Amino acid sequence: MDSEIIDHQLLSSLKTGFLDRAILSDKEFQPELLVNERSTGKKILSVIIKELLNCQAFWFSVAFATKGGVATLIETLKNLEAKGVPGQVLVSQYQNFTEPEALKMLLKFSNVGLRMMTRGNFHAKGYMFKTAFGRNLIVGSSNLTDNALCSNKEWNLKISALAESEIMFQSHAEFEKEYQEAVEVDTDFINQYVSIYNETRYSSRYILPISEPTALYTVRQPQVQPNQMQKQALKNLESLRNQ
Amino acid sequence: MDSEIIDHQLLSSLKTGFLDRAILSDKEFQPELLVNERSTGKKILSVIIKELLNCQAFWFSVAFATKGGVATLIETLKNLEAKGVPGQVLVSQYQNFTEPEALKMLLKFSNVGLRMMTRGNFHAKGYMFKTAFGRNLIVGSSNLTDNALCSNKEWNLKISALAESEIMFQSHAEFEKEYQEAVEVDTDFINQYVSIYNETRYSSRYILPISEPTALYTVRQPQVQPNQMQKQALKNLESLRNQ
Repeated sequence: MDSEIIDHQLLSSLKTGFLDRAILSDKEFQPELLVNERSTGKKILSVIIKELLNCQAFWFSVAFATKGGVATLIETLKNLEAKGVPGQVLVSQYQNFTEPEALKMLLKFSNVGLRMMTRGNFHAKGYMFKTAFGRNLIVGSSNLTDNALCSNKEWNLKISALAESEIMFQSHAEFEKEYQEAVEVDTDFINQYVSIYNETRYSSRYILPISEPTALYTVRQPQVQPNQMQKQALKNLESLRNQ
Repeated sequence: MDSEIIDHQLLSSLKTGFLDRAILSDKEFQPELLVNERSTGKKILSVIIKELLNCQAFWFSVAFATKGGVATLIETLKNLEAKGVPGQVLVSQYQNFTEPEALKMLLKFSNVGLRMMTRGNFHAKGYMFKTAFGRNLIVGSSNLTDNALCSNKEWNLKISALAESEIMFQSHAEFEKEYQEAVEVDTDFINQYVSIYNETRYSSRYILPISEPTALYTVRQPQVQPNQMQKQALKNLESLRNQ
């Protein structure tokens, strides 16, 4: 499409989105609040998949990634790999919550650069896409987990803008800065991380964290069954609690 | 200011923000990516305080609120109370992470409506302000905690729009729907919640959560010292681990 037509369409959508919703314009370029809605079956995941399938490049910056979260995108990512569409994914070591399995799944894609921010309480969630006309950006509360993309009550703001716009300049600069600060994920890195991850899971489940640094959200509560020895330890703790 | 002048200014800012950053316009109405930046001392908190001081009404929708988070806004909220500026704050019971003390602090303000979403894994973070010209909206990863507003690496997208715009229509409708679904917080409610909160803290610290519902982020790791009895229990667990 001619770039003047695009500019005109985008401007119309901005007017609807930011000035007056009575103005008719292309919904595709309008800003939107993305939520998961059980009653209508609306999912943030559907928007992410649609954006991925339409994009020429993508950048994800998410604090937490889980196996289940990556699994929801796996077929789409295969499609992008086949088309040679490049992506960069920045995840965080914050709380050691990101699952090693999620890293392993992402590492397999030849078209995806993968880095982990190992410091600074990295809690951001942003999804950026290069499209035929410019950029789409989603910023909000959804991590790369199946619950966040499909069922949790989340708020994400989606906007469309040209590549040379102020907001896309800011967002790209911020992503690039953070990506440069992060550590490249490879098999060696994952092996090291597995130990830290398991240690965090293990210690947070079985022993009292006495001198942990201030931690705001921390690790998830795993749904595991205790073995006989653990059952006995739990029983002992339970009687201590009741004393 | 004349509404036509406002419309014109806002439109210019939208052009800078979404089309071409070379266009000169009022920075106040431009979209912005809000982050905490140690090197420059930039804090998301400063923007929230500025918005509160300039607003005619506000709506917060945050998964987690802590005592420290509310404390960062306490003087500003007192100022708004004195001016009679109304606000609605929606927090979540998700993970029982919101601190009862934060609720107690907010409940004291006669100008603030306070509700808690008690179901649905409510993980949203949104801050809306009514201004002299229209609305400002901040959506992103920052909860109402001091770390999220001052030091964590967070991404929040701030936009300005008129009240009758599509994005403000969507955001207000979503907030209103969620606020209606939530439970009004009063002293009785807080007393009940204190028990649940303490129980969650207690059980997550000392015993293995065997049949907890799937929990993504869970409770924080408190910095507490074990007593003698707990020390012994820890020692026992430690030897079990090493067997």
